[in-house]
Amino acid sequence: MKILVLNSGSSSIKFKLYEMGSAEEGKVLASGLAERIGEATSTLKYKRHEPNGQETARSWNDPLPDHDTGLKMIIEALADPEAGVVASTDEIAAAGHRVVHGGEAFSAPTVVNDDVVAAIKQHIPLAPLHNPANLDGIRVARQLMPKASQVAVFDTAFHQTMPPEAYMYAMPYELYKEQGVRKYGFHGTSHKYVARQTARLAGVPYDQANLITAHLGNGASMAAIKNGRCIDTSLGMTPLAGLIMGTRTGDFDPAILFYLNRQTGMTLDEMDELVNKKSGLKGICGHNDLRDVHKEAEAGNERAKLALSMLAYRNKKFFGSYFAALGRLDAIAFTAGVGENDDWVRAASLADMDHLGIVVDPKRNEGRFSEPTLISADSSAVQVWVVPTDEEYEIARETFEVLS
Amino acid sequence: MKILVLNSGSSSIKFKLYEMGSAEEGKVLASGLAERIGEATSTLKYKRHEPNGQETARSWNDPLPDHDTGLKMIIEALADPEAGVVASTDEIAAAGHRVVHGGEAFSAPTVVNDDVVAAIKQHIPLAPLHNPANLDGIRVARQLMPKASQVAVFDTAFHQTMPPEAYMYAMPYELYKEQGVRKYGFHGTSHKYVARQTARLAGVPYDQANLITAHLGNGASMAAIKNGRCIDTSLGMTPLAGLIMGTRTGDFDPAILFYLNRQTGMTLDEMDELVNKKSGLKGICGHNDLRDVHKEAEAGNERAKLALSMLAYRNKKFFGSYFAALGRLDAIAFTAGVGENDDWVRAASLADMDHLGIVVDPKRNEGRFSEPTLISADSSAVQVWVVPTDEEYEIARETFEVLS
Repeated sequence: MKILVLNSGSSSIKFKLYEMGSAEEGKVLASGLAERIGEATSTLKYKRHEPNGQETARSWNDPLPDHDTGLKMIIEALADPEAGVVASTDEIAAAGHRVVHGGEAFSAPTVVNDDVVAAIKQHIPLAPLHNPANLDGIRVARQLMPKASQVAVFDTAFHQTMPPEAYMYAMPYELYKEQGVRKYGFHGTSHKYVARQTARLAGVPYDQANLITAHLGNGASMAAIKNGRCIDTSLGMTPLAGLIMGTRTGDFDPAILFYLNRQTGMTLDEMDELVNKKSGLKGICGHNDLRDVHKEAEAGNERAKLALSMLAYRNKKFFGSYFAALGRLDAIAFTAGVGENDDWVRAASLADMDHLGIVVDPKRNEGRFSEPTLISADSSAVQVWVVPTDEEYEIARETFEVLS
Repeated sequence: MKILVLNSGSSSIKFKLYEMGSAEEGKVLASGLAERIGEATSTLKYKRHEPNGQETARSWNDPLPDHDTGLKMIIEALADPEAGVVASTDEIAAAGHRVVHGGEAFSAPTVVNDDVVAAIKQHIPLAPLHNPANLDGIRVARQLMPKASQVAVFDTAFHQTMPPEAYMYAMPYELYKEQGVRKYGFHGTSHKYVARQTARLAGVPYDQANLITAHLGNGASMAAIKNGRCIDTSLGMTPLAGLIMGTRTGDFDPAILFYLNRQTGMTLDEMDELVNKKSGLKGICGHNDLRDVHKEAEAGNERAKLALSMLAYRNKKFFGSYFAALGRLDAIAFTAGVGENDDWVRAASLADMDHLGIVVDPKRNEGRFSEPTLISADSSAVQVWVVPTDEEYEIARETFEVLS
């Protein structure tokens, strides 16, 4: 079964076409990106994945005024007599859509119908930037691929198993009932994929696995997983909370916002931008990309050093709190851009934790990993892995599963 | 040396007169409270502590229009021919003042002079409710007890040893430099007193002791103490952050404030009151006193049960994160109203942590304690104590120390 995975943003559509359920399960046939939709310089980048493992790239610079045109061009490329991988669009049995916010309504991948579209629409206030773009992708795919099943895979779904003591905030209860104020968490598809891989690698049945997965990218979150179910995660009602990120604060004393308003007259909108776009690593040292932060730190920049030690310390405290919450820990997994490639962050985030049975082997940890790699010492009671994430494959897998 | 400890609030002055530095070190001679200062129903409650351990209580209902009158009446009561404990006010060698916020300027108790008064004034924006009242007490004491030394003991001082990775927020660095935005922590005098007692009880030299002290009252905070120095604490720049409190949220995703403003039109001032006065236990279940919450939970109130499990779970996560940060843990200590008296909270906050070497003995934990009590099991690698706090004694002790 051929499944097209779509991640539709406000001005882009990422896609990947998978072969699923056959002997070639998980094979990527083609992938690419329609970007700068609505701008003069819009492009479709397209890659055909050849049987020999090589990729044939093509790009089109035709104007893409909207998502309709963008997806139309993607579909045409996939069926293009020369560059394509299917004889007809009808060969694509399903589209799996990444949807950022499913609130409490969705705890599993869901076949899209009008009610599902309406429910995703209802959740727009919780994800005002993402859900409308995701809906655009769904709308266009339903029009252009009427024979294909459409499945929505939610970034929040994996975290819906959290118990109330983890997802409730200590605020007036009415805010939860009336405004949906609670922790939802994000990166769920990545956490789920990595958790299943890690359990397998650690040799523990998934439904008995106690894990902490650390998705560290420009955005970052951890999930505490008990018996294969998420019991806590570090992002909150929004993607601001928890760990220190590229430009986002993570947790801080919220009353600072009242203080800043009184002292400086900053408005809520200005503070929203401050904490989401100008904070995190960037706020501390001026750089939001960890590779730049490392370079600066090595050159003696004290603020870059501070940013690194703050990031690692925050990570360490979250590992400790989830270890306490889990009661027993089989394995920790690092994933995403930083988690897979930054050995300093991995080592520093778990430094001096041998009293908790966590020991990273410096040699094993060294380097960047594109394959699952064990980085803990043999003496470590808790296994530590680097497990490259694959959200698109997970969306394809879940789409296939819900249709089977 | 007789030392008068003063805790001056916006409409009250608490006082305790100590004998320090002699064979009678720490003996309380008299104590009491001038309350509802500025109101028609103001009262001075006064107790003389008799040598036989009993107390002789008196009260005066004379009007106390301001702090000047309040302290004047306290001093007159102390020297009262009938009820008093000194022949003349001149016998009082020093006054030790509780001051809430010393910012980065004060990391130790300090003899008050005009510069110190000016510095405390400068920190009013950081503690707009408390520092002005504390300053009132200092001003009046300097006038009425001109021969006595005046010493300021800061609630924030103990936490000034935190390293930058613990006290900095991941916000633009200028906010730290220009606006003093950082973690300060509070309850420092209590944490310090309890930490010293706990090290002694655990048989560890204080400067080698690794401890977590949990000051759980209507306000609540934890401190992580490494080699006798505070390395982290749960309250933040303000007393809002960290643990779930009677009416305060503790940590939550700060972006919820932007959402609430957009969805409901609530202003910053309204949200300030919401998260400080209407949240915490009260927000979840309508009761901010844990005794009431327990009663409701026992009667089957689901929200009261939720409030309890949220409070315990938050505590547990902080214990775990500080355990990770400390690298080795000698002892945990519970103190303050809830910490000393609520065995359910103590047990639930450390439940299922035997994998971390923390085991509370249910029998030992049972009940309310007015004396230091070991509540961990013999099998527990980490000792767990209940240590009643005594902030007034600690202020007297530090005042005596700085003058010696």
